[in-house]
Amino acid sequence: MAGPRRRDLIAGLGVVGAGALAAGGVALAGGERPTRTARSDRVPFDGPHQAGIVTPAQDQLVFAAIDVTTTDASALADVLSRWTTAVRSMVEGVPVGGGEGGLAGAVGQPPADTGEAYELPAANLTVTLGYGPSLFDGRFGLQDKRPAVLEELPALPGEQLDPSRCGGDLALQACADDPQVAFHAVRNLLRIGRGVVALRWMQLGFGRTSSTAEAQTTPRNLMGFKDGTANLRAEDSASLGRWVFVGGAGAPEPDQEWMRGGSYLVARRIRMLVESWDRASLGEQERVVGRTKVSGAPLSAPHGSEFAALDLAATDAAGKPAIDLAAHVRLAAPETNGGQRLLRRGYSYTDGMDPVTGQLDAGLFFLAYANDPDGFVRIQRRLGAHDGLTEYLKHTGSAVFAVPPGTAPGEDWGASLFA
Amino acid sequence: MAGPRRRDLIAGLGVVGAGALAAGGVALAGGERPTRTARSDRVPFDGPHQAGIVTPAQDQLVFAAIDVTTTDASALADVLSRWTTAVRSMVEGVPVGGGEGGLAGAVGQPPADTGEAYELPAANLTVTLGYGPSLFDGRFGLQDKRPAVLEELPALPGEQLDPSRCGGDLALQACADDPQVAFHAVRNLLRIGRGVVALRWMQLGFGRTSSTAEAQTTPRNLMGFKDGTANLRAEDSASLGRWVFVGGAGAPEPDQEWMRGGSYLVARRIRMLVESWDRASLGEQERVVGRTKVSGAPLSAPHGSEFAALDLAATDAAGKPAIDLAAHVRLAAPETNGGQRLLRRGYSYTDGMDPVTGQLDAGLFFLAYANDPDGFVRIQRRLGAHDGLTEYLKHTGSAVFAVPPGTAPGEDWGASLFA
Repeated sequence: MAGPRRRDLIAGLGVVGAGALAAGGVALAGGERPTRTARSDRVPFDGPHQAGIVTPAQDQLVFAAIDVTTTDASALADVLSRWTTAVRSMVEGVPVGGGEGGLAGAVGQPPADTGEAYELPAANLTVTLGYGPSLFDGRFGLQDKRPAVLEELPALPGEQLDPSRCGGDLALQACADDPQVAFHAVRNLLRIGRGVVALRWMQLGFGRTSSTAEAQTTPRNLMGFKDGTANLRAEDSASLGRWVFVGGAGAPEPDQEWMRGGSYLVARRIRMLVESWDRASLGEQERVVGRTKVSGAPLSAPHGSEFAALDLAATDAAGKPAIDLAAHVRLAAPETNGGQRLLRRGYSYTDGMDPVTGQLDAGLFFLAYANDPDGFVRIQRRLGAHDGLTEYLKHTGSAVFAVPPGTAPGEDWGASLFA
Repeated sequence: MAGPRRRDLIAGLGVVGAGALAAGGVALAGGERPTRTARSDRVPFDGPHQAGIVTPAQDQLVFAAIDVTTTDASALADVLSRWTTAVRSMVEGVPVGGGEGGLAGAVGQPPADTGEAYELPAANLTVTLGYGPSLFDGRFGLQDKRPAVLEELPALPGEQLDPSRCGGDLALQACADDPQVAFHAVRNLLRIGRGVVALRWMQLGFGRTSSTAEAQTTPRNLMGFKDGTANLRAEDSASLGRWVFVGGAGAPEPDQEWMRGGSYLVARRIRMLVESWDRASLGEQERVVGRTKVSGAPLSAPHGSEFAALDLAATDAAGKPAIDLAAHVRLAAPETNGGQRLLRRGYSYTDGMDPVTGQLDAGLFFLAYANDPDGFVRIQRRLGAHDGLTEYLKHTGSAVFAVPPGTAPGEDWGASLFA
């Protein structure tokens, strides 16, 4: 009736497919048995930057904003250390506490790992840590380590924020190609941190809306449009240095040395008023986006490629701008924002029905990395005030985090901050 | 840094892998180009039973309980007809309204399809329709067509139901290997039904917890245990006839002829108190389940296979029952329930944080098919009253639906009921 499912593919032979594709279609040598620890299934944890920023965007997201419930800085540092050990295990597809041959746990004790990802592939899991502005409020003696650019976002047009979806002392962004692998990671980290940290809010993303590598096809968001055609890509190291990583080539020098190689993460839960959007004509939808719906080509070259350069000066037969003055692509374009760019890493979400309106609560969980969160603020001020899309959007959650640099082998996540 | 992502695999070459696996590892013939409409990616809509019951359980679920907001039976029948047409398109990977070459839509009109699944694979999408007991309350002149066994479930032990997660005139169960494909289906059907139907509640399932075909590996639920080892399988046609399909061989004759070949769907949102569970020792966890955590073997043969038969009479060295008297597997076993069996099709879910307790709202969205919903009621009465697992579970949502039989080519979903 139907072929094998994805999990069975991956658990069984799917990695052959991935391996073969990575190798340009050449099958694995005869007799070579694929395992769930095949390289193409794992993203290395250590490096100059944390994994999960330029890593090719995985399919699924579990994002957790977390509060620290103690004022004991050493207890917090200890949790960060234990988190690091656990994540190093999980990204290899190994349970927390080790236990390649099983789920580790002494007799009479709870198992070290909750088990729901056991025998699942590593699924390119990445877990990325962030520090919210509130972490530097003095509770932990970190007030002198707060980067000047790390502050709660100002009020912005187009928002109607739900306080229960805002802020957080810490963030954990878990991305994987299997949602159960991402959920397992966050659940186990929360469990390790019990008594020191507590969940503040959580967001599931069910489908990526960004590409972060050239080889990835551009996905569609819940408006049905290709999203992130002009996104920064992992291969564009010059732009990543200038716009994404703290202290990168061409970027301002950081005021806090511990953030060198880090980045800032802006998270916005952007609800789409899909019922209204779905009633808009194709022409209206394309006008407010500034691209064609099917191909993603800019309206300045509607029969061209998705990747054709925007021509903001182009006019149509009637002499009007081909790309509307209120079009999203015009107002978000680097050309109209002093060259400002962001690395986007968004996911579609739905949280079911809005109990007040009876409409779908669905949209885009927008995640973007930049070496100055003000880059997002300036773009959003323009978009929220002028963008034709704003009529169909409502920002309902918001948070900003300092994302520390990557780790050397054996180094803890908290090392740069607590050194 | 990492291999290509699933969507890219599927969009690009992944179907080669699926095809090769389905064919026992034999690659497609040279020059044969895989497409997103390859057979292994699609589940046929028509048949004696609806798709999505014995179909090998796909990875992802979007479940919608829907109310009818009109009392005009012909308007409802019209929506069912339009839904049928739309689903026939979507399960082929084709947008609503056709439009293989693009997204159909007249100039000045909204597109017929919302677009977010455009160019995604069909992903084995199935959409399964159910009718709730309330549909037969007289609003639509259907009171004489209500099957006697279709009534709201009685109060059951272990439940703490949230009325906003219960009931529904209609159900749409969308399963697919890509969550965006499943979401797209439900969203577009709701859109088609606007003015006649309205969403009542919705549940996302992020990972299957059941196998419904022999070739599927047994997945793990959020307790970390293999779930559904003893589930009915598509290959066991004798048991399906006896226990799952209305009027099947060995089953009682139906009182409503229009339900012949149909089934009944019980949906229960079962929250797991994961924080408590995670504090239980491995021994305690295994005792209340009745199986080992790593292998899934019954405790009557703990070094045996996951599929070893339960020996409910076996004792341990101390002379106590090897499978505890309160163990879930004992109380749920057909041997202790008059042979009663269900076809389970559950999914793990999380809806983030419980705002009251600050704990994870996560667990199992239990779906089960049977030709008499009372089979579930009787098992749950035993489980809820005696099962050691009950301490860690809370049923928070509940609904039951009559699932009409499948369709002949060209026939509408509503044909059997409204004939």
